Amino acid sequence: MEKRCVMDGAEMQMDKPGEECGVFGAYDFDGGDVAPSIYYGLLALQHRGQESCGIAVSDTTGPKGKVLCTKDMGLINEVFTPEILEKLRGDIGVGHVRYSTAGSSTRENAQPLVLNYVKGTLGLAHNGNLINAPELHRELAYTGAIFQTTIDSEVIAYHIARQRLNTKSVEEAVAQAMEKIKGAYSLIIMSPRKLIGARDPFGFRPLCIGKRDNTYFLASETCALDTIGAEHVRDVAPGEIVTISPEKGIESDTSMCIPIKHQARCVFEYIYFARPDTYIDGMSVYHSRIMAGKFLAMDSPVEADLVVGVPESGNCAALGYCLQSGIPYGQAFVKNGYVGRTFIKPGQKSRESSVQVKLNVLREAVDGKRIIMIDDSIVRGTTSDRIVHMLREAGAKEVHMRVSSPPFLWPCYFGTDVPARDQLIACNRSVEEICQIIGADSLGYLRIERLGEIVGDRPICKGCFTGKYPLEPPAEDIRGEFES
Amino acid sequence: MEKRCVMDGAEMQMDKPGEECGVFGAYDFDGGDVAPSIYYGLLALQHRGQESCGIAVSDTTGPKGKVLCTKDMGLINEVFTPEILEKLRGDIGVGHVRYSTAGSSTRENAQPLVLNYVKGTLGLAHNGNLINAPELHRELAYTGAIFQTTIDSEVIAYHIARQRLNTKSVEEAVAQAMEKIKGAYSLIIMSPRKLIGARDPFGFRPLCIGKRDNTYFLASETCALDTIGAEHVRDVAPGEIVTISPEKGIESDTSMCIPIKHQARCVFEYIYFARPDTYIDGMSVYHSRIMAGKFLAMDSPVEADLVVGVPESGNCAALGYCLQSGIPYGQAFVKNGYVGRTFIKPGQKSRESSVQVKLNVLREAVDGKRIIMIDDSIVRGTTSDRIVHMLREAGAKEVHMRVSSPPFLWPCYFGTDVPARDQLIACNRSVEEICQIIGADSLGYLRIERLGEIVGDRPICKGCFTGKYPLEPPAEDIRGEFES
Amino acid sequence: MEKRCVMDGAEMQMDKPGEECGVFGAYDFDGGDVAPSIYYGLLALQHRGQESCGIAVSDTTGPKGKVLCTKDMGLINEVFTPEILEKLRGDIGVGHVRYSTAGSSTRENAQPLVLNYVKGTLGLAHNGNLINAPELHRELAYTGAIFQTTIDSEVIAYHIARQRLNTKSVEEAVAQAMEKIKGAYSLIIMSPRKLIGARDPFGFRPLCIGKRDNTYFLASETCALDTIGAEHVRDVAPGEIVTISPEKGIESDTSMCIPIKHQARCVFEYIYFARPDTYIDGMSVYHSRIMAGKFLAMDSPVEADLVVGVPESGNCAALGYCLQSGIPYGQAFVKNGYVGRTFIKPGQKSRESSVQVKLNVLREAVDGKRIIMIDDSIVRGTTSDRIVHMLREAGAKEVHMRVSSPPFLWPCYFGTDVPARDQLIACNRSVEEICQIIGADSLGYLRIERLGEIVGDRPICKGCFTGKYPLEPPAEDIRGEFES
Amino acid sequence: MEKRCVMDGAEMQMDKPGEECGVFGAYDFDGGDVAPSIYYGLLALQHRGQESCGIAVSDTTGPKGKVLCTKDMGLINEVFTPEILEKLRGDIGVGHVRYSTAGSSTRENAQPLVLNYVKGTLGLAHNGNLINAPELHRELAYTGAIFQTTIDSEVIAYHIARQRLNTKSVEEAVAQAMEKIKGAYSLIIMSPRKLIGARDPFGFRPLCIGKRDNTYFLASETCALDTIGAEHVRDVAPGEIVTISPEKGIESDTSMCIPIKHQARCVFEYIYFARPDTYIDGMSVYHSRIMAGKFLAMDSPVEADLVVGVPESGNCAALGYCLQSGIPYGQAFVKNGYVGRTFIKPGQKSRESSVQVKLNVLREAVDGKRIIMIDDSIVRGTTSDRIVHMLREAGAKEVHMRVSSPPFLWPCYFGTDVPARDQLIACNRSVEEICQIIGADSLGYLRIERLGEIVGDRPICKGCFTGKYPLEPPAEDIRGEFES
Repeated sequence: MEKRCVMDGAEMQMDKPGEECGVFGAYDFDGGDVAPSIYYGLLALQHRGQESCGIAVSDTTGPKGKVLCTKDMGLINEVFTPEILEKLRGDIGVGHVRYSTAGSSTRENAQPLVLNYVKGTLGLAHNGNLINAPELHRELAYTGAIFQTTIDSEVIAYHIARQRLNTKSVEEAVAQAMEKIKGAYSLIIMSPRKLIGARDPFGFRPLCIGKRDNTYFLASETCALDTIGAEHVRDVAPGEIVTISPEKGIESDTSMCIPIKHQARCVFEYIYFARPDTYIDGMSVYHSRIMAGKFLAMDSPVEADLVVGVPESGNCAALGYCLQSGIPYGQAFVKNGYVGRTFIKPGQKSRESSVQVKLNVLREAVDGKRIIMIDDSIVRGTTSDRIVHMLREAGAKEVHMRVSSPPFLWPCYFGTDVPARDQLIACNRSVEEICQIIGADSLGYLRIERLGEIVGDRPICKGCFTGKYPLEPPAEDIRGEFES
Repeated sequence: MEKRCVMDGAEMQMDKPGEECGVFGAYDFDGGDVAPSIYYGLLALQHRGQESCGIAVSDTTGPKGKVLCTKDMGLINEVFTPEILEKLRGDIGVGHVRYSTAGSSTRENAQPLVLNYVKGTLGLAHNGNLINAPELHRELAYTGAIFQTTIDSEVIAYHIARQRLNTKSVEEAVAQAMEKIKGAYSLIIMSPRKLIGARDPFGFRPLCIGKRDNTYFLASETCALDTIGAEHVRDVAPGEIVTISPEKGIESDTSMCIPIKHQARCVFEYIYFARPDTYIDGMSVYHSRIMAGKFLAMDSPVEADLVVGVPESGNCAALGYCLQSGIPYGQAFVKNGYVGRTFIKPGQKSRESSVQVKLNVLREAVDGKRIIMIDDSIVRGTTSDRIVHMLREAGAKEVHMRVSSPPFLWPCYFGTDVPARDQLIACNRSVEEICQIIGADSLGYLRIERLGEIVGDRPICKGCFTGKYPLEPPAEDIRGEFES
Repeated sequence: MEKRCVMDGAEMQMDKPGEECGVFGAYDFDGGDVAPSIYYGLLALQHRGQESCGIAVSDTTGPKGKVLCTKDMGLINEVFTPEILEKLRGDIGVGHVRYSTAGSSTRENAQPLVLNYVKGTLGLAHNGNLINAPELHRELAYTGAIFQTTIDSEVIAYHIARQRLNTKSVEEAVAQAMEKIKGAYSLIIMSPRKLIGARDPFGFRPLCIGKRDNTYFLASETCALDTIGAEHVRDVAPGEIVTISPEKGIESDTSMCIPIKHQARCVFEYIYFARPDTYIDGMSVYHSRIMAGKFLAMDSPVEADLVVGVPESGNCAALGYCLQSGIPYGQAFVKNGYVGRTFIKPGQKSRESSVQVKLNVLREAVDGKRIIMIDDSIVRGTTSDRIVHMLREAGAKEVHMRVSSPPFLWPCYFGTDVPARDQLIACNRSVEEICQIIGADSLGYLRIERLGEIVGDRPICKGCFTGKYPLEPPAEDIRGEFES
Repeated sequence: MEKRCVMDGAEMQMDKPGEECGVFGAYDFDGGDVAPSIYYGLLALQHRGQESCGIAVSDTTGPKGKVLCTKDMGLINEVFTPEILEKLRGDIGVGHVRYSTAGSSTRENAQPLVLNYVKGTLGLAHNGNLINAPELHRELAYTGAIFQTTIDSEVIAYHIARQRLNTKSVEEAVAQAMEKIKGAYSLIIMSPRKLIGARDPFGFRPLCIGKRDNTYFLASETCALDTIGAEHVRDVAPGEIVTISPEKGIESDTSMCIPIKHQARCVFEYIYFARPDTYIDGMSVYHSRIMAGKFLAMDSPVEADLVVGVPESGNCAALGYCLQSGIPYGQAFVKNGYVGRTFIKPGQKSRESSVQVKLNVLREAVDGKRIIMIDDSIVRGTTSDRIVHMLREAGAKEVHMRVSSPPFLWPCYFGTDVPARDQLIACNRSVEEICQIIGADSLGYLRIERLGEIVGDRPICKGCFTGKYPLEPPAEDIRGEFES
């Protein structure tokens, strides 16, 4: 039991995989300030990263390359005061929210990256992870490059800057750079007169285009467009580069696209990362989760009185389970919405666990009931263990856990933060063993065969479940910082 | 439509009535530090007040009357760092979270109030509102009293201090003071060697007793006891004074109690204020809300495809409606949990509304559907109006609104913050007219006759619905600051 | 030697006696905002207190008794941002800077005190120390008073409030209160329509009146009037109450004054506390110090090459010594002006002493020279010891210390913070012994007979040198906090 | 007169030329933490820059290239809390304080610069200004470099990184880089196992070596060595590169040195920038200033009663004037040590000038006297004008101004911040005209012929007085930011 009281960061995040970032860009052809819209857009993407954030803007009618940027550790609401937003005047801009493992989470690594190069300045925001960053880093260093951060984005920026010497436009330089960089990336680049979006050929991370009057937007998720009242124009296709400028509107370069069947969207975007009101490549995230719940009901049925979701991320799948099984939907937990990241470690004497501070069981709802509890994933298992016990202490007669993804078994090299294999509860354990460890009456995972169906048969990456990746994983561990 | 874009504080609170405060006290008979438990307890009560908070502690074995106190504007997580908590050493203590209208929301008015008087020091935390505070204030001033805050609690403190001159114990002084003060109050008082809880004879606001090993707790709601793993011993009865000390454990003085039938619990504690996992006077708040939803289904039935709650507070009643009606439960909204109080006003050009930044509709879930939307109350109607339109824009075929309380018509003098009558949408309007204003297809309120049933026939105050109050309302407006 | 490296607060203050506070008030009869002038005035008085500060203002044409107040721990420049100053709109106001021993230095104790009483609100700023505060506190407590701070000023406020019930005006109430309170006090009181200054009958602490156009000022020192370009009208006389109002200009009540010969100005105001550009009761502080230096040259002459002052406070007396002796003035030290209060303790390994970080010797100036070093006082002797050694290490052939005050032997009850007797180096030691401890070649103090002469024979309090006080010192120690 | 009330940054700095930076490095061969010593060292160098500061440290026994760095806007005391210093563990480190004109004063531009390159990491701190930075910047950009700051130091870092590809050691790379960069630079570089100091061949800015036990230091000024109790070993010679490592102690590379007669120390380091207790290249700064004062007395004698310095920088020269002339030294001003950089602009109605808030005249000292007032320089003349008037208003019969440097006439390209020519009061005006403008009775500047004598005939740069520079000044203005 003791282990449950440890209040490290991992448990605070309720034992979930971590996502890298969210990006948002805007260009108002009528010259209005875009910082407020970027602020709202990032608020809607805050679930993709809570460690640091930033906004960079530029006035396309002003001196070429004058960029104003504010970035810092903290949430959007903490970093951006009205005074700061007020000063960020400019009609083109890019913003970023960042999740990060502790080691490399410093102010220096906050994005957007703003840099001065041969053709003026660039602002760059990146979601994803390169698998050949160390090689590229080394290569660049051997030609005299210096690095001031430990993020992939600086490697990307260097390649764009170098390619720009031999190309006619910044978007061409981006295309050339894309030939060199390998891995997951959804990029938004602000040049003095253009807003550019680029998505890696596999489409690991989402990126979409929006429009409101004469302002164009690029965003990680469509929910950010909804928040600012913008229309969802379309998604940037895997491998596509879009260039937005008043002269030509949206231009598309699809030369880097690969055959659709080779695409490899991250399935966890549908299962957990993205907000349910987001559509990724035409597929509703909400609908994916409803279907996952339905499949769980089909494939792992059990008799019970109530289906409940572990808030918030298990709720949609729980609804799906109800719809399929006919068992009533219930609420078993109350989540404390005021408990954030900065949560104090209790002293030795106090026995409050982080899970209990974040969640409380609705005894009235579960007492004497047989409960089906739906969560989106089990990583280390510590939270599931705790929650199952909380339900039992509140009088639940039976607790059947259903998980709307297959067992987590392998590392991710494409931007999802997963603990080391030996910390994954599913590693080298049968479902039965896991069930026993977490203390449930039964345990069912989503069958791996169902993954395709829940995303409407779009090509996906299932590497974390199968160990088979769309790109050869790197020999060296790429998830640390660069330190040559 | 323009009005929806106004970002004042009222709309940010999603057009809900405001509650005054939450209180929490602890006394560890074994001498352990209580500040961590008070911290967790207040985290669980944060929904009762987000303006300011504070913790005062004392060491009962140290110099009599040495009290350490930290209080400031902000959330628990903002005010209390590990360093600050570490310094709050003491085995007895009291904490407070405060909601307040802008005018009197200053650091000076934060609680607990710590004061030095003839018998040492007192720490005092108060939830409620006195209706005779201005008279008492005047009376005190005419005998030379000075006031350093504009809160009722200082008036209460004065009365206790003055009564203490003629009484043998602090609890007796509290009893004497209760003869003078009129209105709503749940009090926790920390004297050098005793922790005292007192609840007004009508029982407007909740107050309960908890225990964990040799530590006793007083708290506004039982959910705070759950969070720290304490057992719910019982509630403090309306009119009761409980005195907690190592010598005598829990002592009770019920001399101020009135006949049960005259009690007048605030029904809004059940409908909206309290957390659903809380039990007030033996009644589950969750259960009250489930029943309210069931009654709505019985009294205002309508054919539909989906029942949805307006998050978070409408969810329980929505479940109740489903259980009664058999119509499936659904999720129609995604709430942005990262949007807090410090939300920046958008510039003139941006059209983002505060409602839309906080809530987005799940188009996938509602498109083409007939929706029953449950909320706990309608105050001004601005939020309801906005949400109904959002559902329609997302494709809902019909929107039927059901409200789990009767129409709001009268001011509250007992601690609930309600706007002026002319701002209440239900004032001088028929249900039909309100329905038209908010743009719903039908609208149903909880019938006032049902109020007794949803609280298990405990005596309640329905003043805000009927204009009939358990105590004569004051001639002067008591809701402002004292400025003689 | 080790002792010199200890970095406690006392040494950081360079082993000087501590002063209690500075006060500043303003009333613009033309209705202009006074907060900026108070801000500048307090900046000029910052040497009188660096722990906390505050400004309270009121609009005399607005609702009676509406007071805006900002106060907090820290320097003027730290607490008051342009945004905060901007919000402090009002044509009457009072400000305060506070020095305090660590124990009672809390935000609650910051001044001005703002209170609501029978006749509206008062703002009150106080410099000094009452000797009968504990008795008065007890007396008040026995009539039901509650205290929210541990400062004398609250006791004074209570007396004014109580007297106000039986008097026609607030100034009369102040006069009545002055009959009860005993000790040192220079008070500035802001009532809704009047600015009042009062000085105790002994005149321990200074208080002066200024004027600029139609704005009147009250200030601890005339240097604050110079800073804001105001003319020095006159000093408030010991025992006088001045009432400033548009109707009557400056009114004076001298009924509390005592015979001049019984007055007892704190001589340390002239020797150390006040800025040299200040005039107290017609006497230039600069001139006092020049004379003290001259007397040292007459009474303790020695042959030497250079006279140097310990910066800053020894410089004036050093000039006086030069003028009398004809020995050239020199600069022996460079003071680091960037080292403030928040100075980090060095780790165990580092050997930096606090004195050395604050002061460095100008080797070039002292090498091979016989030095006369002038300081204003020796309290514990730790700093003198250190500085003498620094001069020797820099090559000084001889170091003769001269002190522009007599030996410190007794506690002060009137607002000067002196350590306990057993920490005073002069206590139970001959001058010869002290000289040996600090390692000087010779040591001379100002003769006690000279004190009268350096202040132009104004009646002064010499209690800290003689143990004879103008008022019977209290039986109980009054310098701690009130904790009954 | 109105102009004196303008509170822009320039006047706040009392109309002085601005200096660029201070640098400090440390390497403890015994493995102790160096951050505390760097902290103290920077405190002693704070007069060289108050805009931003930073410390970077590394553990030479840890993973190669792991550097911890904290840097931000603000003073040393504001940026470095005990908690932050505690975390900066490492036995090698480098620190920086930065002065900057407003435009480029951002957090991004704070130093030390920490960068990762082909051979690990470098920390770099730079004092000075390159005159060919724009060309080098352009050159680098045309080979694909990206820039994240607008400071010269990044250009230097790039050159070191590129040269490192073809050299055997980092010190060789520094030497190669020095062949390319032109202008003023005193550099401290921290590589994983070496601390390197380099000074440009002209020796514009100072740099010295210190030692305490087994710890070596590099510092801008010797006063920083005194503060930490380190011995001054020697200065880094103009053009010299010193490499400090446990294996070889101090190694010297003098291959970049030029003939001594071509060296060109900035004479303003002696006149104003450096602290008087510093020795630069064997010459006491204090002594230089004493001599400047003596020469003023010889070359511009005048009959008077008192010689006073404008604090702090005029005091030494004033002492020199006294020694030569026999006229007594006096104190005419009181400086408010609590007025820092963050000084609030007075509202329109207030007439407080920034000079008056910072300085007050000691009327008692100057009334009726003929005053010789010594300052180190006159730039715009606004402060001198103000001070002369303040003396007259205080009763001075005559005011004779003497300036311990020649008239300022030309821009500086080597790190001194001087306003544009048209703002220099001496530009196109005779001494007589300037005297009239500032309102003095007479005015005398140090004769340009005396400059050599006051620095012991060391070769100096007098460009700001003569317009003749040791290096061809750049065609383009190099003092702005790089924006291609």
